[in-house]
Amino acid sequence: MRLALGLEYNGTPFTGWQSQPEGTSGQDALERALAAIAGVPLRSIAAGRTDAGVHACMQVVHFDCEVERPLTAWVRGVNAHLPEAMAVLWAAPVPNEFHARYSAMARHYTYYLADRPVRCALFADRIGWHHRALDVDVMREASACLVGTHDFSAFRAAECQAKTPVKTMSTIDIRREGELVRMSFSANAFLHHMIRNIVGSLVHVGAGKAPVSWMHELLESRDRTRAAATFAAQGLYFTGADYPTGFELPATRRALAFDPG
Amino acid sequence: MRLALGLEYNGTPFTGWQSQPEGTSGQDALERALAAIAGVPLRSIAAGRTDAGVHACMQVVHFDCEVERPLTAWVRGVNAHLPEAMAVLWAAPVPNEFHARYSAMARHYTYYLADRPVRCALFADRIGWHHRALDVDVMREASACLVGTHDFSAFRAAECQAKTPVKTMSTIDIRREGELVRMSFSANAFLHHMIRNIVGSLVHVGAGKAPVSWMHELLESRDRTRAAATFAAQGLYFTGADYPTGFELPATRRALAFDPG
Repeated sequence: MRLALGLEYNGTPFTGWQSQPEGTSGQDALERALAAIAGVPLRSIAAGRTDAGVHACMQVVHFDCEVERPLTAWVRGVNAHLPEAMAVLWAAPVPNEFHARYSAMARHYTYYLADRPVRCALFADRIGWHHRALDVDVMREASACLVGTHDFSAFRAAECQAKTPVKTMSTIDIRREGELVRMSFSANAFLHHMIRNIVGSLVHVGAGKAPVSWMHELLESRDRTRAAATFAAQGLYFTGADYPTGFELPATRRALAFDPG
Repeated sequence: MRLALGLEYNGTPFTGWQSQPEGTSGQDALERALAAIAGVPLRSIAAGRTDAGVHACMQVVHFDCEVERPLTAWVRGVNAHLPEAMAVLWAAPVPNEFHARYSAMARHYTYYLADRPVRCALFADRIGWHHRALDVDVMREASACLVGTHDFSAFRAAECQAKTPVKTMSTIDIRREGELVRMSFSANAFLHHMIRNIVGSLVHVGAGKAPVSWMHELLESRDRTRAAATFAAQGLYFTGADYPTGFELPATRRALAFDPG
């Protein structure tokens, strides 16, 4: 039978989501805990393969298992075997047509950034940092050209394995929230490092180092060498994915616990 | 000359604020960094001596130093010598009458608590946890009797060194914010463990294990053995202190960066 899980994790102690020979990734930690409950090795597939240091308020995973266990075993039992930085929030049986990656119609990420002279200490590994004040209105204006279906090659990492650089960005929301600049992105899918590259370029514009029009020129150029540097991973949160309602999943989207929504 | 500093820190790696022979406290970390800038050992005094694991959005400290340094040295210079988990936000010269502890007229703390079946992983050491849903309205109602001037012996740790158990609680604000229960407390001063003991007892009431009236009975009893267990440190944030405006300090109060305020 196939099962889906909703997870949260702090990305700091993991070398990204994707399994590593050294067993240091989020996927490795999850699969060890699943194996402890199932008594057999299990492989999992995730909605989004987050980079090292990137967090998840909601990661959706599926796996196949011949062994029958009550649903609570896949939540409380697995949690007892997971490291402190990861927890299963829910488990649900799904039909074999469900695929955590391929069934996802949209993915959502939020970047939290502090723009202040002093580095972040209280949330050092949870918030990105720029040392000078940013113009959020200008950043929002510059981001508008990214909404829609575009070739995002200008914001694509060299190692990206996606079949096509054409993705559809449905919404970008940029605003101040408390002391932070909060940037939310929704798309059908994202290229490798795409959000961190976009954030780096938006910060460049927000700091006054390039005009608003530069963002559109970048996008049109499809040239990664022209965009700003990839921004730090620690401010980025995977906030979930959307699936067809027919799968009747529990919530697959979730804001930061502190976020009033 | 006397200087005041505003600090933030993640309490997780420190054994509380107060200096320890092993040098593992927040005060020890700060004083090592100050000594590196001054070239001589310095002693500091803080507005609030937070427990191990308790965080600070704003801690106010003062110290005396014969050595002249530009103010930026007390911010950027000290930050270069501080561990990742602590940062100076501002430095300001103050008259010798200023005392970070004795000049403070009020202190402010906020406790963030998740009430859900699954432990916290993404913010494991930043949010307190209760495994069942709490009735926030009942907790707010129960907290009302604590506002005002009272003998808070029922919520006082055995090791508390305060001269008197009588403190004046000016406000308590309890509400849901996002997924969390947010509890803010302001008083002229707090006894050792007072907030964590109050939170423990409020959770007891919010979970339906005691009626609203129990809180008032507890307070009246002045008997620590009757209150609920001290709640976990990790959800508690020191959010600052109030000083007479005549000292012309930068902001000495600050919400969590994520808090929209």
